[in-house]
Parts: sequence; C-alpha cells; structure tokens
Amino acid sequence: MRRLFPFLILFLAAEMTQAQQIEDAANGVKYPENLANWRIIASSYRQDNDTQRIILGNHIAIQAVRSATFEHWPKGSILAKLVWKNTQHAQWQSAIVPGKLVHTEIMVKDDNKYKVTGGWGYARWKGSDLQPYGKNADFAQECYSCHTQVIKNDYVFTSAAELPGK
Amino acid sequence: MRRLFPFLILFLAAEMTQAQQIEDAANGVKYPENLANWRIIASSYRQDNDTQRIILGNHIAIQAVRSATFEHWPKGSILAKLVWKNTQHAQWQSAIVPGKLVHTEIMVKDDNKYKVTGGWGYARWKGSDLQPYGKNADFAQECYSCHTQVIKNDYVFTSAAELPGK
Repeated sequence: MRRLFPFLILFLAAEMTQAQQIEDAANGVKYPENLANWRIIASSYRQDNDTQRIILGNHIAIQAVRSATFEHWPKGSILAKLVWKNTQHAQWQSAIVPGKLVHTEIMVKDDNKYKVTGGWGYARWKGSDLQPYGKNADFAQECYSCHTQVIKNDYVFTSAAELPGK
Repeated sequence: MRRLFPFLILFLAAEMTQAQQIEDAANGVKYPENLANWRIIASSYRQDNDTQRIILGNHIAIQAVRSATFEHWPKGSILAKLVWKNTQHAQWQSAIVPGKLVHTEIMVKDDNKYKVTGGWGYARWKGSDLQPYGKNADFAQECYSCHTQVIKNDYVFTSAAELPGK
C-alpha cells in the first residue's frame, strides 16, 4: 500500500483535473462523470436533424424503469442522451451509423430543485469536449417548452425499449 | 442467515430456471445472461429492413475497445446487438424509436474454437422470448458469409461511437 500511495495520489489528481475540465451547465446542473458506463434505456433516430441517439440511465433511473411496476421517475433519476450525426456505413450502404458526437444531454429529476422546469433539470454539453450549451440559465426554458408536449409522460420523450428475456 | 437460507435457495432456483429457459444456439454458443446490463459500443439503423440497433460489449470487449491503443478484439470479447423494428414516436413524428424487439445477436471471439467462422462464434435469439435462430449449426455460415465483407475489420461491422469526454 505504501508503495502504491504516490500512484493513488496521481490517479486522484488526474480524476479531479478531468472533473474540473467539464463545466457545469448555466443552471447548475453537473455533468455526471460516469455516464458512458450507464445502462441502456432506448435508442432513436431523428429524420428532421439527421441524428441518432442512445438513451442511458443512472442506477436510480434504471432500477425504476426496469421494475415490473414502473410508474414514475424517482428523485435522483438521471436520463442521458448521446446524440451523433448520421453517417453511412462504408461497407453497408443502407446501415446508418454514428458519426461525429453532436452533444450529450441529461435530465435530472428533482421536483423541488427544478420546479420551474417541470421537476427536471436540463443540461446539454456540445461536442466531444463537452462545452456547456446556453449563455445563461434561461436555456433550460428552451428544453422545457419542447418537453411540455409530453407532459403526460412526465416530460420525457423516451419510452424504455423492450429488452431480451422480458 | 439461517432464516434467509430458504429464500436463497428459491432465488437460485428461479435464476437457474431462467437460465435453462434460454436455449443455446445450435452451434453451442450460450446466451450471456447479463447482456442488457452491458455498456454501449454504438448504435445504428438500417434502411433496408427498417430496424434500429444498440451494440453492447461485455467487460473484455469494452476494456479493449475503449483503450487508447485498441487494435483487435481479444479472446473472450462478446459483442451483442439488440435489434428493434422502427416505430414512429407518437408525439414527435420525425423521431423513430424502438418498436418490437426483433432479435438479439452476439459474436463471441475465440480464434481456435470458432476457426471455421473466422474466429467468431455467432448466435441469434429471436423475439423477447429468445428463441434460438437456425435449425442446425450451419446457420452460422449465413452470418459468416455476410461478415466476410468486413474481413479487414476482423469481421466486425460495428465501429465504436465517439463517447463524450474523449
């Protein structure tokens, strides 16, 4: 352990540096560090802006949505959406695969904290270097106003995809 | 512990029953139990058969593909592809989301064991009840013959999608 100590310090310092490099959204929503390791909820693609997506959930969200009695997203649920530009597969022309990473979006559930945006905190980080979207906290109104279309689904567009063995 | 013992037995029995319900593919490839909890490699959608997909990897595959020096899939890598029929989102017409689960496919890397199919063991289970595809082991030739188009990419169509923070 004694010998490992300097390496542990270096490792923690590197982790902290990485964490510091990703700016919070202007409404205070933090980028969840481990997001690319989260489990899947669904995929989708959009014909209007030529993108495809994978929607992931943190532990709270996955536990909720995969339970047989799922009804609502509990406090602390985070949904993450990775959005890529559509690109044609070089060896299979009818297959459309992820090109450039456009942005990473999250929704964090907290009815009190995010009361003005329907109980969800919204954030988006642009590109692979995760630049926060929006000049000030008002950006979240843009997200919210669009998500009001699915108010009956607790402002969430995503439904869980059917998983094997269910 | 003593009181928990009967429940533990019941739990294990239930788990074993579930495992037994999923038949091996005709070439002996086993369905990986925990597949829906694996981490993402990419997404895709196909215009020729109107489906969309999420491609996941087991621990060995993810560790390899996410390393800075990734060159080949090591022995024990498993790639899994969940395939859904495309369906229009009810509240957002240009968004195409997962409908019915069509099938779950895997590729298992073992150069010796699966020599006749290019070092990969192929399998497909149909529908949400995971019925193995193919009447006998020859079904894998069908997979293999199509995958020879990407022999230069070690028979793998999927490239890892760009992840945030990379």
